Amino acid sequence: MKVYLSGEIHTDWRERIESGADGLGVTFSAPVTDHAASDDCGVAIMGPEDKKFWHDRKGASLNAIRTRMGIESADVVVVRFGDQYKQWNAAFDAGYAAALGKSLIILHGPDHAHALKEVDAAANAVCETPEQVVDCLRYVLTGKLPG
Amino acid sequence: MKVYLSGEIHTDWRERIESGADGLGVTFSAPVTDHAASDDCGVAIMGPEDKKFWHDRKGASLNAIRTRMGIESADVVVVRFGDQYKQWNAAFDAGYAAALGKSLIILHGPDHAHALKEVDAAANAVCETPEQVVDCLRYVLTGKLPG
Amino acid sequence: MKVYLSGEIHTDWRERIESGADGLGVTFSAPVTDHAASDDCGVAIMGPEDKKFWHDRKGASLNAIRTRMGIESADVVVVRFGDQYKQWNAAFDAGYAAALGKSLIILHGPDHAHALKEVDAAANAVCETPEQVVDCLRYVLTGKLPG
Amino acid sequence: MKVYLSGEIHTDWRERIESGADGLGVTFSAPVTDHAASDDCGVAIMGPEDKKFWHDRKGASLNAIRTRMGIESADVVVVRFGDQYKQWNAAFDAGYAAALGKSLIILHGPDHAHALKEVDAAANAVCETPEQVVDCLRYVLTGKLPG
Amino acid sequence: MKVYLSGEIHTDWRERIESGADGLGVTFSAPVTDHAASDDCGVAIMGPEDKKFWHDRKGASLNAIRTRMGIESADVVVVRFGDQYKQWNAAFDAGYAAALGKSLIILHGPDHAHALKEVDAAANAVCETPEQVVDCLRYVLTGKLPG
Amino acid sequence: MKVYLSGEIHTDWRERIESGADGLGVTFSAPVTDHAASDDCGVAIMGPEDKKFWHDRKGASLNAIRTRMGIESADVVVVRFGDQYKQWNAAFDAGYAAALGKSLIILHGPDHAHALKEVDAAANAVCETPEQVVDCLRYVLTGKLPG
Amino acid sequence: MKVYLSGEIHTDWRERIESGADGLGVTFSAPVTDHAASDDCGVAIMGPEDKKFWHDRKGASLNAIRTRMGIESADVVVVRFGDQYKQWNAAFDAGYAAALGKSLIILHGPDHAHALKEVDAAANAVCETPEQVVDCLRYVLTGKLPG
Amino acid sequence: MKVYLSGEIHTDWRERIESGADGLGVTFSAPVTDHAASDDCGVAIMGPEDKKFWHDRKGASLNAIRTRMGIESADVVVVRFGDQYKQWNAAFDAGYAAALGKSLIILHGPDHAHALKEVDAAANAVCETPEQVVDCLRYVLTGKLPG
Repeated sequence: MKVYLSGEIHTDWRERIESGADGLGVTFSAPVTDHAASDDCGVAIMGPEDKKFWHDRKGASLNAIRTRMGIESADVVVVRFGDQYKQWNAAFDAGYAAALGKSLIILHGPDHAHALKEVDAAANAVCETPEQVVDCLRYVLTGKLPG
Repeated sequence: MKVYLSGEIHTDWRERIESGADGLGVTFSAPVTDHAASDDCGVAIMGPEDKKFWHDRKGASLNAIRTRMGIESADVVVVRFGDQYKQWNAAFDAGYAAALGKSLIILHGPDHAHALKEVDAAANAVCETPEQVVDCLRYVLTGKLPG
Repeated sequence: MKVYLSGEIHTDWRERIESGADGLGVTFSAPVTDHAASDDCGVAIMGPEDKKFWHDRKGASLNAIRTRMGIESADVVVVRFGDQYKQWNAAFDAGYAAALGKSLIILHGPDHAHALKEVDAAANAVCETPEQVVDCLRYVLTGKLPG
Repeated sequence: MKVYLSGEIHTDWRERIESGADGLGVTFSAPVTDHAASDDCGVAIMGPEDKKFWHDRKGASLNAIRTRMGIESADVVVVRFGDQYKQWNAAFDAGYAAALGKSLIILHGPDHAHALKEVDAAANAVCETPEQVVDCLRYVLTGKLPG
Repeated sequence: MKVYLSGEIHTDWRERIESGADGLGVTFSAPVTDHAASDDCGVAIMGPEDKKFWHDRKGASLNAIRTRMGIESADVVVVRFGDQYKQWNAAFDAGYAAALGKSLIILHGPDHAHALKEVDAAANAVCETPEQVVDCLRYVLTGKLPG
Repeated sequence: MKVYLSGEIHTDWRERIESGADGLGVTFSAPVTDHAASDDCGVAIMGPEDKKFWHDRKGASLNAIRTRMGIESADVVVVRFGDQYKQWNAAFDAGYAAALGKSLIILHGPDHAHALKEVDAAANAVCETPEQVVDCLRYVLTGKLPG
Repeated sequence: MKVYLSGEIHTDWRERIESGADGLGVTFSAPVTDHAASDDCGVAIMGPEDKKFWHDRKGASLNAIRTRMGIESADVVVVRFGDQYKQWNAAFDAGYAAALGKSLIILHGPDHAHALKEVDAAANAVCETPEQVVDCLRYVLTGKLPG
Repeated sequence: MKVYLSGEIHTDWRERIESGADGLGVTFSAPVTDHAASDDCGVAIMGPEDKKFWHDRKGASLNAIRTRMGIESADVVVVRFGDQYKQWNAAFDAGYAAALGKSLIILHGPDHAHALKEVDAAANAVCETPEQVVDCLRYVLTGKLPG
């Protein structure tokens, strides 16, 4: 099973899912989570821009190669919404994955439930912790429930 | 060849097909056939629900990850209708597979033939025993007929 | 908006939806609801069969032209499950529509909720009465809520 | 040309686009912009829920019928991000439209440019005012530039 | 309903279907049935060829515009196999339509049944007379059986 | 029939095709053929750019809305290669249309035949004059040959 | 590269292609070429039929599982037309493959060129001998020409 | 990751990308870059043609098997435009890849920027040197920036 881990990049949720799923035979992919590299990749490789808008555009378009490849090859897309920032790219990825008919697992705290209701409604599972995501993946692959 | 075995979970038909097809190089997948786990997986992982409707919804949505992955990656989808229960999920899977253009083998006793006529009409083969399904798979893969 | 009304053919639920949606600009389609004609159409047009199985096959394949055309051109597919019969063709239609990414409204009484949990989980709305279906369609088209 | 107007529902940007595009032969569609109706439609039609989560789910799933129909039939999807709220459903719609290969016009103020860089990178045009969107639509349809 | 009438061009079967279906609201399309024009269209418009092979290629490629448009826009594709000639283009059209998921009605005499078994197996209906095809179309559209 | 006329914008070939096809019921679409407007549309509407590269990008992305809409809705795409300039956008449109399975007619003088061999090989017809294109369209629609 | 070898089953053309392509890394698939098994597989496995029509149907539907799997997974479909029989299934396969956008190589003697002009027009290459097909495959994979 | 290298065949840009990407796990494919073989492959294998037009057609159609296979299986398509020739096949490939939703990297010198503006607008990255393409691939796969 291939799983793409989209969204928030400031906590260790990806590591917790990947280590929890150890032994299940899941192949994980994810965006570049080095914030500075992700922001500057376009100009670092293809030359500087005076305007921040095009600086951002060059980077976002390059990152989209990785994102698109990750989502399109995934069986399951997990999207994490954290407590900070707008995280519109996370919601964009969720919509992109939904339109492709991918199975979606959304991961967020209860405070965001109302704001994410349209996103959650497109999902197969809504989890509050990375460990619940691991339990979902283990159940889907092995039929085993936790505990 | 990848074969998804959908439908009835109370008899040993899957085992009979899998053991009969031993050596043919077929990779089988199937839904979780532990009835209790299948019913309760959603709440066991993501927390309890007071209403049975949402208890069921959480489980069915989670199970759909496995079902969708199994059907979409399959070359052939076998759907078994047994003697009991409504088995609407089996017919749903058959319709889902048909719309994706998957090859379908339907497995049921003669008593259900009239009720299943629309489903049978979408199928490549209608069998009465698991052994006939094995004979179909062997023929499709090797060109060898039984006997 | 185009709506296909699939499923149970022994009560007046289609008429109640169509009259309730009068003035909304909805175009409805449905299977042939004359039970005898639907069963016998194949042999009546293309000649008799000795075996009931092929009698049924000829009819089901012919009816599939209408069903497929109705579902594929629909924006919304409503599937009604009644109290009697196996109704596997209704569940097949629901699966077919779901795989095509159609919006689904499922209509059934509370007694069938558990047996239909996989079908309901693929739906945008689960209603208990034809009037609720009408309210859904009116809301989707006009934004107006009942009452 | 069919244009779907997604996103922020608290200012008059839709009206400004629709009136500005008067005479161009554009057919506009949009989500239900009555905030209360949009939040409560599910329970108002299909019955109350004790939990806010399922109250929201019922509404979001029903609204998705309209959203999906609007985006899938559109030639161009315009997505507006305002100054307030998370607006994850707007970004979700943008991702959904992008995956379907729809032409995208994103409308937002310069303050949001960095946070929206992935969304903007998927767009054909990024505008700051509704009038610029109108100018884009007019140019695309008639070849005429403003002024 | 849109119906494409493919295949044999030497008898009046198309006229019999079109006149029989009068009043049903069916829009028919078909290949160019003027044999000489169909064979020579390419060189007549784009200049002569010394080799018969390229003479044929120019015509066949041009005719393919009409064939493709007819099949792709059709709800139902009727393919007629007559008593003479190889008629490989008819079988090619049937395969093309089947791969696109079109409803198929095959029209041929009983003598060809064995040679057409793979084609018939992909069809919704196999008829022996144009009148049976009309009866199929009428039933599919109105639910009325003949007689 | 819908026909998109892509490519060279400095001669009157579009007018000759459109007037020649008068009465055939063809709906034509085309890119904006005002060269200056096409080059400057992006900055004229969304504000100036210092760099020519982004000036061009803004315009090309906006023009792509019209191009994509024209090609995707077309039954036939005609692509004209003239004697001057690189005309890479014309070849790009041809490739885009080919990948979508559109019928292609390529229009160019004999001097370009070798350089266009890959493009011609994807086409249904290769014409040297606009009048030949008209003859192709008339034949495809009516079965009538010129003369 | 995966190549499906469709069509005539009475000469050794498949063996000649497979042995000629030895070492190129091509995986070949083909229909069941045991004529008797192919005709009788349906009834041999699923029980006899009184009518030849349904005897044939059962077999053809079962064989279609193998055919569909072979064509859909192929990069190149080779279709051979021999000197005898109607071979409508070969032309059907060619049409099916063409509609899926598969690369096609057609193999036939010059006598059939006119009758196959529509099929040839959909092909990437038209060969007269199995050795030419091998040369095509070798060139496509290695860039080496014969001699 | 699979990368198809389309376009100019007279400089060593492919070798520079392939050697630069050594160790990244990228599988590269490309057209036949032996100009004479590419031009003559059709007639060398399938027999000579008097007319240059059909000589070219036979070769271009055969080469299209390789091109199509390369583009359709690629995650990323790199298209190089050199200083000479029309290179319409390069632009055709770019359009073909864009319509299939492939990630695109365009490689050309600054002199061609204006003529390629429509092609560049469909790309994820526009590079001036093969080394920049390598840096893009390395970043997309590993998240590492150069230097």
